[in-house]
Amino acid sequence: MRHARIRFEGDIHFATVEGEDNVLHLADGRRIQASDAEWLPPATGSMFALGLNYADHAAELAFAPPTEPLAFVKSVGTYTGHDQITWRPDNVAYMHYECELVAVIGKPARNVKREDALDYLAGYTVCNDYAIRDYLENYYRPNLRVKNRDATTPVGPWIVDVADVPDASNLKLRTWINGELRQEGSTKDMIFDIPYLIEYLSSFMTLQPGDMIATGTPEGLADVVPGDEVIVEVEGVGRLVNRIVSEAEFFNHQILKNKKLAEQEA
Amino acid sequence: MRHARIRFEGDIHFATVEGEDNVLHLADGRRIQASDAEWLPPATGSMFALGLNYADHAAELAFAPPTEPLAFVKSVGTYTGHDQITWRPDNVAYMHYECELVAVIGKPARNVKREDALDYLAGYTVCNDYAIRDYLENYYRPNLRVKNRDATTPVGPWIVDVADVPDASNLKLRTWINGELRQEGSTKDMIFDIPYLIEYLSSFMTLQPGDMIATGTPEGLADVVPGDEVIVEVEGVGRLVNRIVSEAEFFNHQILKNKKLAEQEA
Repeated sequence: MRHARIRFEGDIHFATVEGEDNVLHLADGRRIQASDAEWLPPATGSMFALGLNYADHAAELAFAPPTEPLAFVKSVGTYTGHDQITWRPDNVAYMHYECELVAVIGKPARNVKREDALDYLAGYTVCNDYAIRDYLENYYRPNLRVKNRDATTPVGPWIVDVADVPDASNLKLRTWINGELRQEGSTKDMIFDIPYLIEYLSSFMTLQPGDMIATGTPEGLADVVPGDEVIVEVEGVGRLVNRIVSEAEFFNHQILKNKKLAEQEA
Repeated sequence: MRHARIRFEGDIHFATVEGEDNVLHLADGRRIQASDAEWLPPATGSMFALGLNYADHAAELAFAPPTEPLAFVKSVGTYTGHDQITWRPDNVAYMHYECELVAVIGKPARNVKREDALDYLAGYTVCNDYAIRDYLENYYRPNLRVKNRDATTPVGPWIVDVADVPDASNLKLRTWINGELRQEGSTKDMIFDIPYLIEYLSSFMTLQPGDMIATGTPEGLADVVPGDEVIVEVEGVGRLVNRIVSEAEFFNHQILKNKKLAEQEA
């Protein structure tokens, strides 16, 4: 089953997603078309994101593969939903997409062993963990200007139940820019797989329901610019669409959107 | 005025804090003794914490002072309140306290100039940004095991209004272990002050109400062990008390506390 979080007529709803047309079945029983709703990030906990978790990607960036997980935190302001816009900052040289499988935590996880790890998952989703490469510098330093700008981490479209993904360690990852396939990999090439990551992270902190682990991206990165449509897909999990706009266009859009939401509330 | 967030008889309340005895005046009009309540972190947004923001502390760790702010994110699970316990992990060589002034955001801040920065603040609080130094390694790497364990960032006791702190750039910071003064500094030695940090962070992301900026710590660090009482104080803002326990004691305490809360809810 697929579980989404959406905004419809100004209110936030949880919904299950039905069929190829992605009909949204709201908790109150109504069924609505996806085109009438705004997709929101399906979870809103902390996101623990992995750097360099695919050996081919580490090589592409000229780094040695890590010998332990390189994890960093993202704050919620950087999430956005499926089918939304994101922005390329003015005056940067290089912004790249990163197609990633995301594990979503379902219950508090502390000191979980890898063989039990899947019991603690709510399911899987997809993210595009865009990076502004100008500020990267070294692999201990995904600083906030690289990875924590407003709405630069599309997440979704939905969470797929664990039972519906028989083997998360063998899924194709693909990214298209304007319809052209640009990145292709498989979760089988992860250095640290999801059970390992849950064991690692939960060994020193409690993972909470709604927290997410973004598991890293394979090689094949390229620059994106305003006007590009970027699709990241994880086989059997979801296909997450996103459009790049300029900084000015993004923030003008946000102002108009906030105004509309305020009017709906009034 | 001082504003606290507390738990009383199982429920979370906002309260103003009155007099030297810190009487808690709840929003519903009741007045209660602080000893009858549990202090919670006064804000629950994202915390953006500064590394090496005092030149003397950078020197103490044998680093050159940074030429731009070194900021990282902390996730909410790492916060705890005033007068609570925190834990030293088993088998680590060095855990140190860090007395810090914290700026709390009061309204959405984007592209704010430093001369307007204080208009965006809700006020100030104090934190003790404990670090497990074993995993530090270099200044781009306050990795999650250093800075993101459960309940290892005491915050509080309260938020003091901006108007009640006439000059946040000239406040004494002091830390006592078991009554002995061990760290002493002044916010005048910050490399990047609060208006600068708000300008910097808001130049690439929107700071939200309840977000916090932990502004770094001066020199004078030392190891703490179970049994220690650690007090960090920022002049005119607050005095934040915390006790260190062992890993086993902390998590046993958490289990009992969660059980009690569940009973109160039932």
